[in-house]
Amino acid sequence: MSRGRTFASDNNSGIHPEVLAAIAAANDGHVHAYGDDPYTAEAVAHLRRHLGEDVVPYFVFNGTGANVSAITSLMRSYEACICPETAHINMDECGAVERASGGKLLTVATPDGKLTPELIEGRIWGVGEQHHSQPKVVSITQATEFGTVYTPAEIRAIADTTHAHGMWLHMDGARIANAAVSLGCTLQETTFGAGVDVLSFGGTKNGILMGEAVVFANAEMAPDFLYVRKQSTQLASKMRFVAAQFSALLSGDLWLRNARHANEMAALLAEGMGALGGVDIFQQVQANEIFARIPAEHVAALQAVADFYVWDESDSSVRWVASWDTTREDIDAFVSAAQSLLSGQPAE
Amino acid sequence: MSRGRTFASDNNSGIHPEVLAAIAAANDGHVHAYGDDPYTAEAVAHLRRHLGEDVVPYFVFNGTGANVSAITSLMRSYEACICPETAHINMDECGAVERASGGKLLTVATPDGKLTPELIEGRIWGVGEQHHSQPKVVSITQATEFGTVYTPAEIRAIADTTHAHGMWLHMDGARIANAAVSLGCTLQETTFGAGVDVLSFGGTKNGILMGEAVVFANAEMAPDFLYVRKQSTQLASKMRFVAAQFSALLSGDLWLRNARHANEMAALLAEGMGALGGVDIFQQVQANEIFARIPAEHVAALQAVADFYVWDESDSSVRWVASWDTTREDIDAFVSAAQSLLSGQPAE
Amino acid sequence: MSRGRTFASDNNSGIHPEVLAAIAAANDGHVHAYGDDPYTAEAVAHLRRHLGEDVVPYFVFNGTGANVSAITSLMRSYEACICPETAHINMDECGAVERASGGKLLTVATPDGKLTPELIEGRIWGVGEQHHSQPKVVSITQATEFGTVYTPAEIRAIADTTHAHGMWLHMDGARIANAAVSLGCTLQETTFGAGVDVLSFGGTKNGILMGEAVVFANAEMAPDFLYVRKQSTQLASKMRFVAAQFSALLSGDLWLRNARHANEMAALLAEGMGALGGVDIFQQVQANEIFARIPAEHVAALQAVADFYVWDESDSSVRWVASWDTTREDIDAFVSAAQSLLSGQPAE
Amino acid sequence: MSRGRTFASDNNSGIHPEVLAAIAAANDGHVHAYGDDPYTAEAVAHLRRHLGEDVVPYFVFNGTGANVSAITSLMRSYEACICPETAHINMDECGAVERASGGKLLTVATPDGKLTPELIEGRIWGVGEQHHSQPKVVSITQATEFGTVYTPAEIRAIADTTHAHGMWLHMDGARIANAAVSLGCTLQETTFGAGVDVLSFGGTKNGILMGEAVVFANAEMAPDFLYVRKQSTQLASKMRFVAAQFSALLSGDLWLRNARHANEMAALLAEGMGALGGVDIFQQVQANEIFARIPAEHVAALQAVADFYVWDESDSSVRWVASWDTTREDIDAFVSAAQSLLSGQPAE
Repeated sequence: MSRGRTFASDNNSGIHPEVLAAIAAANDGHVHAYGDDPYTAEAVAHLRRHLGEDVVPYFVFNGTGANVSAITSLMRSYEACICPETAHINMDECGAVERASGGKLLTVATPDGKLTPELIEGRIWGVGEQHHSQPKVVSITQATEFGTVYTPAEIRAIADTTHAHGMWLHMDGARIANAAVSLGCTLQETTFGAGVDVLSFGGTKNGILMGEAVVFANAEMAPDFLYVRKQSTQLASKMRFVAAQFSALLSGDLWLRNARHANEMAALLAEGMGALGGVDIFQQVQANEIFARIPAEHVAALQAVADFYVWDESDSSVRWVASWDTTREDIDAFVSAAQSLLSGQPAE
Repeated sequence: MSRGRTFASDNNSGIHPEVLAAIAAANDGHVHAYGDDPYTAEAVAHLRRHLGEDVVPYFVFNGTGANVSAITSLMRSYEACICPETAHINMDECGAVERASGGKLLTVATPDGKLTPELIEGRIWGVGEQHHSQPKVVSITQATEFGTVYTPAEIRAIADTTHAHGMWLHMDGARIANAAVSLGCTLQETTFGAGVDVLSFGGTKNGILMGEAVVFANAEMAPDFLYVRKQSTQLASKMRFVAAQFSALLSGDLWLRNARHANEMAALLAEGMGALGGVDIFQQVQANEIFARIPAEHVAALQAVADFYVWDESDSSVRWVASWDTTREDIDAFVSAAQSLLSGQPAE
Repeated sequence: MSRGRTFASDNNSGIHPEVLAAIAAANDGHVHAYGDDPYTAEAVAHLRRHLGEDVVPYFVFNGTGANVSAITSLMRSYEACICPETAHINMDECGAVERASGGKLLTVATPDGKLTPELIEGRIWGVGEQHHSQPKVVSITQATEFGTVYTPAEIRAIADTTHAHGMWLHMDGARIANAAVSLGCTLQETTFGAGVDVLSFGGTKNGILMGEAVVFANAEMAPDFLYVRKQSTQLASKMRFVAAQFSALLSGDLWLRNARHANEMAALLAEGMGALGGVDIFQQVQANEIFARIPAEHVAALQAVADFYVWDESDSSVRWVASWDTTREDIDAFVSAAQSLLSGQPAE
Repeated sequence: MSRGRTFASDNNSGIHPEVLAAIAAANDGHVHAYGDDPYTAEAVAHLRRHLGEDVVPYFVFNGTGANVSAITSLMRSYEACICPETAHINMDECGAVERASGGKLLTVATPDGKLTPELIEGRIWGVGEQHHSQPKVVSITQATEFGTVYTPAEIRAIADTTHAHGMWLHMDGARIANAAVSLGCTLQETTFGAGVDVLSFGGTKNGILMGEAVVFANAEMAPDFLYVRKQSTQLASKMRFVAAQFSALLSGDLWLRNARHANEMAALLAEGMGALGGVDIFQQVQANEIFARIPAEHVAALQAVADFYVWDESDSSVRWVASWDTTREDIDAFVSAAQSLLSGQPAE
């Protein structure tokens, strides 16, 4: 196994060389700070080409910043956002949405990290009553935190339900490229084409240094997002360097190559590990993440081979994530070590 | 004049080559995300070497994020922060401190962007009365937004007053390197050595891609800053790349070279422009910024030579900022053009 | 059935005559505003006599104000409060706790509105991890929103669990008098004597015009509550009139008489309605509230007899609340009408 | 001097007997809580009769609650409210507006507590720039915190300026009755008739137990105020008792009698005190408040006669407030005592 690579997170991997080259290429003289520069204009154009000519993108620093500023712009403090219990905004952002928006998260238990129209309807309650936070936003994650993927038809059904209730549909697209590759569709088809109103477009997990984009379906939706972003502390001064990274992803097919590779490596890993006795892959592997239950007594030894996170100690479930730089050798070494551990025999 | 360089802002300049090289060098395999990595540990060690062994640094994305998270960690919503009217936190952060902290800014008019013990005392009022926001933080900027610099003795006097009232002293060090160079002192002497409790340590304006550090005087001051930073959306997943930039600045003397050059260029520009009739430099030039009044009718023509911001239209005051990459040629060209404009004669 | 009385809410009843007399008696000349007056001092003394000599009470306007200011004073924005899904703070305060505190509610499904140590433990997760809101407060309601009552031993067990994790125990005592009467214990025994740290002491539902008290176990717990209350918009200028109402309740046994009567009326109503076919009382009737399922087709007709709320349309469950002024005649008339409706025969 | 009456605050006085009688009269059986009751409907009708048929009133508990919920409903967190430095929302609400709205107060120094179009224009800055909080609300106080009164023409000029910039005009009418009496105009003429968009209509200082109203110019302005009020903890459950007090004030001319009396007593006091050597009344006495400088050495002795607040110790300025229950005897006794003190002779 090559030095240092793990299955802990696609955040643990580094920068794709083409992205680093794009940063260096943008490092030329002075341009206006805060987004009024040609690099940002170019990246915006690439996003529009991929997502639709009407969309309005704004660059931010990170995924939490994207989600928080997007949702804050969509709801007032007496309103609420319906999301799965497992949503990153609920589980992994230290209450940032609640603090920034002043609003409420209405969480829903799901088997696979995916909302449905029925689950959403079940959370809409007390509309028009002054005692209750008013549902205003639905937030879904594509691919989900369980590595599953919504089809465009599923998103369209959710969007229709959402809009029928006068709400907005937000998509946390931290792994939107992995989802599009998984579905074999365009980025547009799995987002705005399916009814999404605002998208957190992820770059960091797809091979860039850092950066995300908040993308609105159209200009009418976000008359004030410049202020929301600034007040949310998410306005980069040297924005050209965030933008240049997105252009590196989107001007050619780097976004697709990186995501496809990560998905393929996850499939390979799932195939290898799933064939071993004692490994129970309990979520569908549709993007670059695998959720499995493995014998608790082997977790530490397997982490020593290549690190990964325990998802839930109570049932010894774990998460393995493949990245743009994961290699077949990484996977072979991991599966081989697991096979030895699980079979009780030393690895060859 | 070389392509594109302006006097608009040190945010308009790019990345120093040594910083870019450090990013590339850190781009090697996988490391833990969110700061649990050797690059972050190394950068923390450099900050401690420069600022004191007890300090506790946390990396964030940008200056607004540093100020907001630092001040939020120091005060509750019913408390207040005393700062100059011209403070970045008051003028240029779109109310981010108020929203994130829920607290109040108590602003003070100053002639030169600098607080004094007397000005602070004048803002301490209603202590112990339930109707009044309780002063809890004093925030000063070093170098100030007017390009002036506090001496260590001035900071010490402010710190003593601040502490005598049971308050904390925050320093916005967006240009802390420029201030230290100006004073001919160490970074420690102008910060924690003079009584500062928490520092927003700026990197972006000193030649890095992006990144700042919130530095606490000791571990007792920030038992919970990890949560404050995360909830403030300022936790970078690929933190090694922020850290590596700080190591590039601080492992040798790059921080000092960049700041010294910028200050020298500002001095040169001030000398050249100040000698022209019609140019009134109305703040002391102690770091890398110049504030001057120039005839309103020549502003646009001079901006066409090299861009800069009008500070206050009402008296035709303007700001010129030198950067780590400003050249003597940039200055000569600008002064020469100004001379022609102001004298009514075509440039040679 | 007498004019206007219903089973909709103990908020629908008026002011007990002794309370109104106390307001009139306090209406004598000038006293200092904002609580620095003899009426407030007297009411504080009464609360201490009932709840313990060390407690520190602060008067506020209403129950939501009490809960929000109490919980806000106990936690920072990156912290969280564990409560039942059915808690008033979660269901009926329009997200006020989230907005005021910036923090998160961690809700728990319960069969009867009551938390247990096990349910609390199940919600404590991610402690010490920067990505997760840190549990800091447990909030229970006494009597619960389902009309059930915690025994002092149950509260003690919850308090021990809460404190073992370094958290605070808040009690929403909107119906604390009804609970104490139900348990046959003192107000102290069911609150601070059982380990509660801060109590929202309810007056409005117990026969006063308006007013609640936030009571801390001791002075160390709330060094800053004066400011929290003021900033929460819950500081009454003519506070003597809130205080005088509490003295009316607590100087003699009015609090007990009112609550005992309401509980007795609820028991009588439960007895009468529970004997009818088609009425399923699905929560224990331990205070002044009854939760029952009744045939959906009879709801409207029965509401026309005396108004009440439908709790959940999906299973036709309803809530009946008795008040300090409910009469036996009210109950007889209601039961009789219900009997006729349910039996399909006209009332006598 | 009669027992207890002071010149400290109109909050120190009690309840007018007609108001107390109205509370008692409303204490009849059950009505719906939270405002869906005939008493509230009646009070709303009275407010509309006085303020205009299109206005939409909502009752709240207190002045801070009225101001905070009104302003919060008008602006987003990245917006700002322009007000005098001396505004109650700036000086006496412990930062409640900043916390609840997340927004910024842009304060303006004034000689007399009154904004002007010019002062407002001077605070409008950075419109359309993402770094700056966007001015959205102007808040004026009628009568001001300095006891001065805006004429309808002055308010109209402010409203025109406010609206020309796309902002809303809020009026803190804690002493709106005193202002209308002072001007000899109707309540409508000094509020909505002069261009006010939303009014905090004060009752507490005008002789009621407690209660204020937030009044919007029309229904379009506050589509969501029910939620804002509830989330602001300002929704009274037994709202009929707040409403009944407003009906007592507004059904006849009690509001006017109380205010006229207070203003007359203030005028009498100003006449008496102003005639004494050493008393410098430095603000116009247009309502029920007097601001004067008196010799520092006599402050305590005079407070012993009838209590009042020192406004600013640095120049020994004080505030005297007359109330609906102030008597000529109170004033005679105070002036006589002052005369003795200031002349160095014992009182007769």
